[in-house]
Amino acid sequence: MTWRVGILGATGAVGQKMIRCLADHPWFRVTEVAASERSARKSYADAAHWMQDSAIPDGVSRLEVKFAQPGLECDFVLSALDSAVAGPIEEQFALAGYPVISNSRNHRMDEDVPLVIPEVNPDHLELISWQKEQRGYTTGYLVTNPNCSTVGLTMALKPLEDAFGVAEVFVVTMQALSGAGYPGVASLDAVDNVIPFISGEEEKMETEPRKILGHLAGRTVRFADFKVSAHCNRVPVMDGHLESVSVRLKNKVSIADVRRALVEFEGEPQRMGLPTAPHHPILVSDDSDRPQPRRDRDAGKGMTVSVGRIRPCEIADFRFTVLVHNTIRGAAGAAILNAELLADRGLIPHRDRAEASTVARERV
Amino acid sequence: MTWRVGILGATGAVGQKMIRCLADHPWFRVTEVAASERSARKSYADAAHWMQDSAIPDGVSRLEVKFAQPGLECDFVLSALDSAVAGPIEEQFALAGYPVISNSRNHRMDEDVPLVIPEVNPDHLELISWQKEQRGYTTGYLVTNPNCSTVGLTMALKPLEDAFGVAEVFVVTMQALSGAGYPGVASLDAVDNVIPFISGEEEKMETEPRKILGHLAGRTVRFADFKVSAHCNRVPVMDGHLESVSVRLKNKVSIADVRRALVEFEGEPQRMGLPTAPHHPILVSDDSDRPQPRRDRDAGKGMTVSVGRIRPCEIADFRFTVLVHNTIRGAAGAAILNAELLADRGLIPHRDRAEASTVARERV
Amino acid sequence: MTWRVGILGATGAVGQKMIRCLADHPWFRVTEVAASERSARKSYADAAHWMQDSAIPDGVSRLEVKFAQPGLECDFVLSALDSAVAGPIEEQFALAGYPVISNSRNHRMDEDVPLVIPEVNPDHLELISWQKEQRGYTTGYLVTNPNCSTVGLTMALKPLEDAFGVAEVFVVTMQALSGAGYPGVASLDAVDNVIPFISGEEEKMETEPRKILGHLAGRTVRFADFKVSAHCNRVPVMDGHLESVSVRLKNKVSIADVRRALVEFEGEPQRMGLPTAPHHPILVSDDSDRPQPRRDRDAGKGMTVSVGRIRPCEIADFRFTVLVHNTIRGAAGAAILNAELLADRGLIPHRDRAEASTVARERV
Amino acid sequence: MTWRVGILGATGAVGQKMIRCLADHPWFRVTEVAASERSARKSYADAAHWMQDSAIPDGVSRLEVKFAQPGLECDFVLSALDSAVAGPIEEQFALAGYPVISNSRNHRMDEDVPLVIPEVNPDHLELISWQKEQRGYTTGYLVTNPNCSTVGLTMALKPLEDAFGVAEVFVVTMQALSGAGYPGVASLDAVDNVIPFISGEEEKMETEPRKILGHLAGRTVRFADFKVSAHCNRVPVMDGHLESVSVRLKNKVSIADVRRALVEFEGEPQRMGLPTAPHHPILVSDDSDRPQPRRDRDAGKGMTVSVGRIRPCEIADFRFTVLVHNTIRGAAGAAILNAELLADRGLIPHRDRAEASTVARERV
Repeated sequence: MTWRVGILGATGAVGQKMIRCLADHPWFRVTEVAASERSARKSYADAAHWMQDSAIPDGVSRLEVKFAQPGLECDFVLSALDSAVAGPIEEQFALAGYPVISNSRNHRMDEDVPLVIPEVNPDHLELISWQKEQRGYTTGYLVTNPNCSTVGLTMALKPLEDAFGVAEVFVVTMQALSGAGYPGVASLDAVDNVIPFISGEEEKMETEPRKILGHLAGRTVRFADFKVSAHCNRVPVMDGHLESVSVRLKNKVSIADVRRALVEFEGEPQRMGLPTAPHHPILVSDDSDRPQPRRDRDAGKGMTVSVGRIRPCEIADFRFTVLVHNTIRGAAGAAILNAELLADRGLIPHRDRAEASTVARERV
Repeated sequence: MTWRVGILGATGAVGQKMIRCLADHPWFRVTEVAASERSARKSYADAAHWMQDSAIPDGVSRLEVKFAQPGLECDFVLSALDSAVAGPIEEQFALAGYPVISNSRNHRMDEDVPLVIPEVNPDHLELISWQKEQRGYTTGYLVTNPNCSTVGLTMALKPLEDAFGVAEVFVVTMQALSGAGYPGVASLDAVDNVIPFISGEEEKMETEPRKILGHLAGRTVRFADFKVSAHCNRVPVMDGHLESVSVRLKNKVSIADVRRALVEFEGEPQRMGLPTAPHHPILVSDDSDRPQPRRDRDAGKGMTVSVGRIRPCEIADFRFTVLVHNTIRGAAGAAILNAELLADRGLIPHRDRAEASTVARERV
Repeated sequence: MTWRVGILGATGAVGQKMIRCLADHPWFRVTEVAASERSARKSYADAAHWMQDSAIPDGVSRLEVKFAQPGLECDFVLSALDSAVAGPIEEQFALAGYPVISNSRNHRMDEDVPLVIPEVNPDHLELISWQKEQRGYTTGYLVTNPNCSTVGLTMALKPLEDAFGVAEVFVVTMQALSGAGYPGVASLDAVDNVIPFISGEEEKMETEPRKILGHLAGRTVRFADFKVSAHCNRVPVMDGHLESVSVRLKNKVSIADVRRALVEFEGEPQRMGLPTAPHHPILVSDDSDRPQPRRDRDAGKGMTVSVGRIRPCEIADFRFTVLVHNTIRGAAGAAILNAELLADRGLIPHRDRAEASTVARERV
Repeated sequence: MTWRVGILGATGAVGQKMIRCLADHPWFRVTEVAASERSARKSYADAAHWMQDSAIPDGVSRLEVKFAQPGLECDFVLSALDSAVAGPIEEQFALAGYPVISNSRNHRMDEDVPLVIPEVNPDHLELISWQKEQRGYTTGYLVTNPNCSTVGLTMALKPLEDAFGVAEVFVVTMQALSGAGYPGVASLDAVDNVIPFISGEEEKMETEPRKILGHLAGRTVRFADFKVSAHCNRVPVMDGHLESVSVRLKNKVSIADVRRALVEFEGEPQRMGLPTAPHHPILVSDDSDRPQPRRDRDAGKGMTVSVGRIRPCEIADFRFTVLVHNTIRGAAGAAILNAELLADRGLIPHRDRAEASTVARERV
């Protein structure tokens, strides 16, 4: 039994990566690719400036790009829309009955929208029923995944928060060029240089982890009460965000305790055997100079977060280095794993084709 | 009136940079270049794998490389020796009557050796007389400058420590490839990558600033009582160490106060007009994305430290980004500015040639 | 006696470099900066996204950017206009009486427009009088300099053509990122990659050298009769175009003859001592692995072309490697040296201010 | 039925890549890893500074590294030995009865040693019987694959030589950093730079293709009679050698003919379905800016050579751009494909364990 997927923002960097990651997916089949008016009505091969490391999957190459509005023949949509337009379009799809699983930032902090990493807070999906009720959605709803650099940090914090309580987090990121999309960072800015600023990034890292690690309290999420201070830098690396992290805990523990908590961490995707779930969500390295972006980003096909250099901190309790593949675990793969979790839980009904067409006609 | 300079470790990366920086120096003239036995007796042009951006200065190109032992015809030595051998050789030179101004780490933490940034703690030079007395040196002595990444951080901390008192410092460095010397980092490790480890670097950053910002108390330096936590990373940048810093102060002040303290900072080198002193030791940028290594490292001919992104911190009191040219202000230029300070204060006597030769004969 | 210069296209990459190169010029003073309507009426500091390695020269920073049309108060204009608009605007300025010294490609191949490298074909400036007559210009005229990669190749070919006759030239370029302007090449295209295509570049390299090395024949230039085959590639280097060249000569000579012809080459700029002329237009290296972009591009302040690896060729007669600083000798410096040559020859009259204003009023 | 493989030079960059490529090989199983005395008797995991993009295969990780001398328990050896030592060691193994399939350059030009690309000149393997006879080998022999940049060029020339006759070849390479091994090129030489020299490389490119495309004439290979002129450059790219090529043919043909010959090319590995053979040995791109190293090097799992920009040449007949993955098709994969070809032809007998041990004892 497979689900039909529509990709919103299919021609952009994250949309391409979604299509790439879904090439041989056992559950999901891309049946619709949607983008802005400029790309609409072209074949996908003509519309997309394809930049992945293998050719466009056969089934997608010849699809006609649709304008991103309800009426698509698919069971749910993955949204990689630019945040300049994602907000209202995603709402239209949810209202028209489509589960919308979005990588865009627009609805992440909405009180009734789950911001989910499947290994971390799958229980937040309970917000969906309240969201539907409140917004008048029928079968549709909105689920989001976090910002790329937030994913790596939050996955590493989760076992620590559960076991010891997190009090304060200092994090300095060294983020890859692919995080800025295409054309993104000019080579004259990138080569032999570091840019110590990424617009909006520090704010996201300082709030998103607190929602994700927060607790469901009736119809809302009570944010976790730790503080995060983030410095975000852009470095000349293709893929893989590296983060230097210092953590103060609520309860004092040994480095061995911290290490064990990270090593033993697993979540629902591992227990359920979701197709995109890595065997180990976190891989702990004991080498003195790992993780490194080029050498570790592809662990678990880009879905494993690498942690290394776990050691005491002169000021906080301990510190470590985290690496996350920003366009896979931090974007396309994050959305797909959310979709798998939802499908596995029976939260993605199969739309029948007639219904989809009806909705489309009604809305026109 | 000029001084004759001998360069110890003259063929290495830092030794080359010293020679480059001294090319048109108004006070100092390179008369001796010394290195290991392997290079000895060759011409400098033959012995050095010269890698600076302009040709070897004429006066130096044809000098014969000497073995690094006392007997050199010069008034003082600048040491760029490898730390594997620097310790005893530098002591031999001091004992033989040479002021030794060293970039090597070996004697930095010796209790009676000043670790000096001229703008920050010129008063620590008073340790010299106690050092001479204790070690039985006559005209010779040892003075050191800090590690490359320490220099940038400590210069930025100095005006804050003086005005507001520093309590805690979180710093994450993104350090340039030139900091590892030549051949140093393999290109297969450097390109499209970050290495989250630099041997010994975090320890230096966590102790050296506390000595430099410490207070003279009789015959020793009472270390400053703040704590530093450092994460050191190597990024694919040629020159210029960038550092993300969060600071907790003893006294609460506004961002405007912090900014003003940094902008108004100057020291003895500026007041005395030392040749290598930059007009501004610290340049504060108000652009949102500066400083950047490639664009700002050459400010003040590499002697100006750039600070930007001064803003509140979610956890500490405020945070900012620092850039220091690691091979100039952080190494060669640091030693030269120390030499200028010592010369200006009358602490570098002119050795007469006969004396130098005598010493040499005696020691053989 | 100084001349007042107006910069057309002043906010772009080449315009900026012109302003940078003119910062302390002994003859020329920038009095006008002109650009598109979008930048007009702002201060230069506000309009330009300044990216040079030192601050905007004081005198230019506060200039008001004008719209690029005649009426500027200056004795001549340097044009760094985008080729999409350069053609007619440059003609307007020439018609309004301004000598126009252009880096843009638009008029390079016009029959009556000199395409000049001062060391190579200063005699082609004789076309100016015919150009004026034919186009009805009074004091104004058009002079152009070649494409960046053409300059390096053609300077190396000049002494060979003169002495031995050039028959065929194979050239493969490895061109720097700065040649594409800003933002230019996306970092996702540049890092860990080579792009084997630069639009229009091969055509320029295959025709421009033949005009430059051609002979004046009355009112036209008879193109040199050699053939050029060019492959142009973009490599991840900031500045400096490297070129692998194989040459077949008309007369067979030894490698020593070729080397000597290159070493001894000099031209009118050297004999006249023009301010921007390098001491040696060509620097021949005998090191086995030079020239290299990062290490040799700044020779002669970016105005010296470096040649190395002169050796026999298995097929043609000999081969070598050429390096040219693409934004200095290949663009901004090329135009400035042309202006110096024209000024030195008395071909740039001093416009009086009233006249300039009159022209401006008449044209509005 | 599988063959046991011994890897000589197993700890180096090419040896590692061989082990990586053999991880899930259907025919070959690594049973021995051999290296210099320095690594001998350690476990492979301890001896190798592993730098591949996935972990050491389980079966190899715990193997004890042996000193590289006969006595290894395997059916044949793949040699990735350093050329400083490869010559005599490979001969010892051949004499001791081992088929030696080598990537090293030492025996490539020996008259009785086949230099083979399986798609190009599998018939040259006939030299083996003459080699055995002449050298007194029993079951052992030597077979080599070409230099990394030669492979790409020669595969592209093969269909042209067959169909139209090649007369002259101009080639300029832009070679990846991994071609120099580890640590190889220093990052201070590589970043923001091109090095216009690779020791010995041009000579290899100018001779090896002529042997490979030569014809068997009794007990020797009559070299093909075309000439090659090569310029070799090192560019800051991780993997993938790019080459700009101009070709003069013996018979004049159209670009369409050239294109068709390249597209339709296939060889024995494709017809036999050898495990490592790519579906297409040559992939022709019609995009104007391909092939590019980062985007095309992994085509056919690194075994497909990409060709693009086929177009007329101003001097020769036509020109194009070639890309070859230098450490796979140009080294480790080249040797493995040779081994597959030999195994498929029945030229690799299964040594029995007793025999191997006997040989070992005899030689000690």
